[in-house]
Amino acid sequence: MGELFKQLKAHLEQEQGLATATIVQGPDHIGSRLLIYPDGTTVGQLGNAELETALIPDAIAALWNTRASVHTYTVSQQSAEQSIHYEVFIEGFPPPPELIIVGAGHIAISLTTFAKALHYRVTVIDARATFATRERFPHADELIVAWPDEILSQRPLYPSTAIVVLTHDPKFDEPTLKIALSRHMGYIGAIGSRQTAEERAERLREQGTPAHQLQRIHGPIGLNIGATSPEEIALAIMAEIVAVRHQKQ
Amino acid sequence: MGELFKQLKAHLEQEQGLATATIVQGPDHIGSRLLIYPDGTTVGQLGNAELETALIPDAIAALWNTRASVHTYTVSQQSAEQSIHYEVFIEGFPPPPELIIVGAGHIAISLTTFAKALHYRVTVIDARATFATRERFPHADELIVAWPDEILSQRPLYPSTAIVVLTHDPKFDEPTLKIALSRHMGYIGAIGSRQTAEERAERLREQGTPAHQLQRIHGPIGLNIGATSPEEIALAIMAEIVAVRHQKQ
Repeated sequence: MGELFKQLKAHLEQEQGLATATIVQGPDHIGSRLLIYPDGTTVGQLGNAELETALIPDAIAALWNTRASVHTYTVSQQSAEQSIHYEVFIEGFPPPPELIIVGAGHIAISLTTFAKALHYRVTVIDARATFATRERFPHADELIVAWPDEILSQRPLYPSTAIVVLTHDPKFDEPTLKIALSRHMGYIGAIGSRQTAEERAERLREQGTPAHQLQRIHGPIGLNIGATSPEEIALAIMAEIVAVRHQKQ
Repeated sequence: MGELFKQLKAHLEQEQGLATATIVQGPDHIGSRLLIYPDGTTVGQLGNAELETALIPDAIAALWNTRASVHTYTVSQQSAEQSIHYEVFIEGFPPPPELIIVGAGHIAISLTTFAKALHYRVTVIDARATFATRERFPHADELIVAWPDEILSQRPLYPSTAIVVLTHDPKFDEPTLKIALSRHMGYIGAIGSRQTAEERAERLREQGTPAHQLQRIHGPIGLNIGATSPEEIALAIMAEIVAVRHQKQ
């Protein structure tokens, strides 16, 4: 168990999400523990492969819902041709919420301030090196000068990850949105008027994005608080991200 | 005019609100200018006392609405027993928005961060010296250790001023709310559950506060974004203050 705990500790220190599954009732292996990561990979073993396979979806759900509860599983016993029951305590530890901001303009600066105050991990991506500077974003956890879709296609995007597209430029925002929509992200927002949003949706539809996916884009972005300044728009966006996270929209 | 401009400049530098009124059409005094302050006092003169009296309400309205427009006034001419017309250009310069936070707990710290990012002037008041410290509130413009109602009764409270009462203690929040309700403030919010808010309203009603005034208190405070942490509650409050300022609630 020592090695497993070391891995658990290292994982939590790296601020990555995981779930633990521990057998608390059953014919054998009481106390055996499995670590389950967001991508479904595992560390450790419970002594029963069928049991492990059965609980992974519940463990991943618990990871994102921060749930801790006992689940009951019925698995076949190879030798005796009869089924046996296990009770497994599953506990989820989600990673800290993450905000990816695509487009390093004025709104992004205020949004970084708000998101950091709310303990989000903040990544700012912009292909334009003059915008994505450390002087403008001293508190961003990551500042990346690159094409956003290339970066996003290479990294894990989770239900705890929010993405806000602020580029005002189809050549950046469309490829970015296509990747975001293909993953299970917690929040996807894109700046632009109602008309811009409709035109963008139309172009994405033509490129093969299904209509039900397009509805997941929040645009016009942000809660309707009458925001006009970049700071107010950032506030409206942050409030919307939190509202969606708490299922209040 | 030199003296008037010096006063205008000094006033704007002190971040106080004022309006200017300039005669642009009329039988005489074209170009004469009057400065009007939020309390209705004036500096300068337009050469016609009746005209000055007539335009003060419009000037105060323009001050708070940031409006700039030409108004027409008809005043009696003492010598000729006939009325004369003036067209006056009135321009409003509101003071920067101000946030007064009563109660220097966790929510107040985050709220100060958000309000400063939105360029609010922030004053934090708490009778408890261990809470209202510079270490906890490095960015507050004013940090006052005193009974909040005593402080508030002595200072101007404007339509551009928002007040948020976070004390969770009737002995602080009730006297504070009574003063806030007696002025023309832009936003009044008080923390507490729906039941707390109702009980507080009942006590204030018993103490003589009219029912229509009590409706001006935002409580439960903040937009409904499912906020649970102090940081999220601060975000919900800030979003509500901005929404009310833009008449979106």
